[in-house]
Amino acid sequence: MKKHIYIYSPSSAVRDKAAFRRGVARLKRLGHEVELDPDALSSHQRFAGDDPTRLASIDRAAASGADVALISRGGYGLTRILSGLPYKKLEKAIARGTQFVGLSDFTALQTALLAKTGALSWAGPALGEDFGVEGGPDDIMEACFDDLLQGQGEGTGWRLPAGDMPQGLEAGLSIRDAQLWGGNLSVLVSLLGTPYWPEVKGGVLFLEDVNEHPYRIERMLTQLLHAGVLARQKAIVFGQFSGYKLVPHDKGFKLASVLAWLRAQLKTPVLSGLPFGHVPTKVLLPVGAKVELAVDGRDAFLVWGHL
Amino acid sequence: MKKHIYIYSPSSAVRDKAAFRRGVARLKRLGHEVELDPDALSSHQRFAGDDPTRLASIDRAAASGADVALISRGGYGLTRILSGLPYKKLEKAIARGTQFVGLSDFTALQTALLAKTGALSWAGPALGEDFGVEGGPDDIMEACFDDLLQGQGEGTGWRLPAGDMPQGLEAGLSIRDAQLWGGNLSVLVSLLGTPYWPEVKGGVLFLEDVNEHPYRIERMLTQLLHAGVLARQKAIVFGQFSGYKLVPHDKGFKLASVLAWLRAQLKTPVLSGLPFGHVPTKVLLPVGAKVELAVDGRDAFLVWGHL
Repeated sequence: MKKHIYIYSPSSAVRDKAAFRRGVARLKRLGHEVELDPDALSSHQRFAGDDPTRLASIDRAAASGADVALISRGGYGLTRILSGLPYKKLEKAIARGTQFVGLSDFTALQTALLAKTGALSWAGPALGEDFGVEGGPDDIMEACFDDLLQGQGEGTGWRLPAGDMPQGLEAGLSIRDAQLWGGNLSVLVSLLGTPYWPEVKGGVLFLEDVNEHPYRIERMLTQLLHAGVLARQKAIVFGQFSGYKLVPHDKGFKLASVLAWLRAQLKTPVLSGLPFGHVPTKVLLPVGAKVELAVDGRDAFLVWGHL
Repeated sequence: MKKHIYIYSPSSAVRDKAAFRRGVARLKRLGHEVELDPDALSSHQRFAGDDPTRLASIDRAAASGADVALISRGGYGLTRILSGLPYKKLEKAIARGTQFVGLSDFTALQTALLAKTGALSWAGPALGEDFGVEGGPDDIMEACFDDLLQGQGEGTGWRLPAGDMPQGLEAGLSIRDAQLWGGNLSVLVSLLGTPYWPEVKGGVLFLEDVNEHPYRIERMLTQLLHAGVLARQKAIVFGQFSGYKLVPHDKGFKLASVLAWLRAQLKTPVLSGLPFGHVPTKVLLPVGAKVELAVDGRDAFLVWGHL
């Protein structure tokens, strides 16, 4: 079914215009109406336009009446304009049926929106890196995106990594009525202590990151730990942490060390392997929705029902 | 005058043992008694020993009765052991006359100590990178360190960069009775929202960092801004931000852009050029002390009197 997709750039400037064009072409080939924000390709320093320009583009996305407002890309730029975001307009647009989709820097908007309004947005793909990738989009990502467009997705499942079964889950896990939140760890943590931080209790917190060395991942997790955020959740779910490089100095310190350390500090179960992050195969996740999380053997299920 | 210096490793493992030895030799040549912690050269993964080992070394530094307890190096390792630090022992050691000196990851200990006890420590050199540097230590750093050892330093001064005079300071600036705090921006920000964060009001906050791109520096400053931390200070003082690389994507975005943006968000004066950071020429700064900060033309003075 043909849907209306609005493309805008709230964060970094689009430099890979070929990927941008391929992404637009792909969405059109899938039969959708693609509307481009007039500043989708604007550039000011490293940003997709200066701060007022990007704020205006977010306003237009909220006013577009589209089925989905999709970011062109992430990068950096949202945290510095959080005090100017049109939270009420975004909330109303979402109530009218516009789904806001994105990841990475977009975590700032999603998390602040949750804090300010409780409105639901989707952690999911970006236009260029996901739909515009050379060789074509990932099948699973595209199927999940289509589910969202057609109002059909009601959950997701994945296999817990064989080498990374958390202790104490041998008998399975069943969590109900938990608010799903999270996204990019660096961006999320950069909101802690600010008015844009949602005080989620009893939630399911999912995390991913790219190009961050495990010691930095650990330092950020330690901040959430010491702030009491992790212990207040019913579960922590690691998505994909990609793009970092271990160095000789690490001498065996790696992401698995971070996970093991974190689990030793915390009673809250920490799962891993969620297919979400800066990787081609990513599911869409409703930030702010009430979810059920179940583990049965090595199978994990995250269910939000009909939204 | 001969002093007793205790060398210990609370953070990363020492890999450059030649620099370590040169540093020890240099301090001995200056006439001091240098005592090495038994785990100063220990190694576990990327750390100078596992967590209990490093905590024990901090305990021994506090019990050493030394005039100065100096870190071998920074790196990473203190944030994850903050809940186990011997705050009371450190406070007592400081009251008995042991000065704790360090930087970078050491900011975590200094800041948490300030939050938990109010005790004063020194932002200053590390053994290897400062005293053990090939070609010999920086004269100014060494003179400031000697001032501390001899109980003679009462302040420091520097020239504000010609191209970076903040607006509104043409008539000068005179701040009194302000608590000095700060250090490494990444490490400091990683404590925000945790029990290790000191609620300093009306302070002078100094900041430095290394290998952090200006957009990351800006994101961290934005967090402090949104948390209300910056507006509660009487002044923000930028030390040296070094080691980062601008990229083509920046298109004119640079550290000066960050400073200009920050100043536009904030009434608190933001000075720059303080000789402190991951650079050879660094002064020693008493974290937690009451200071006066004055600006006269391009000359800035930070005075703490006799401590």
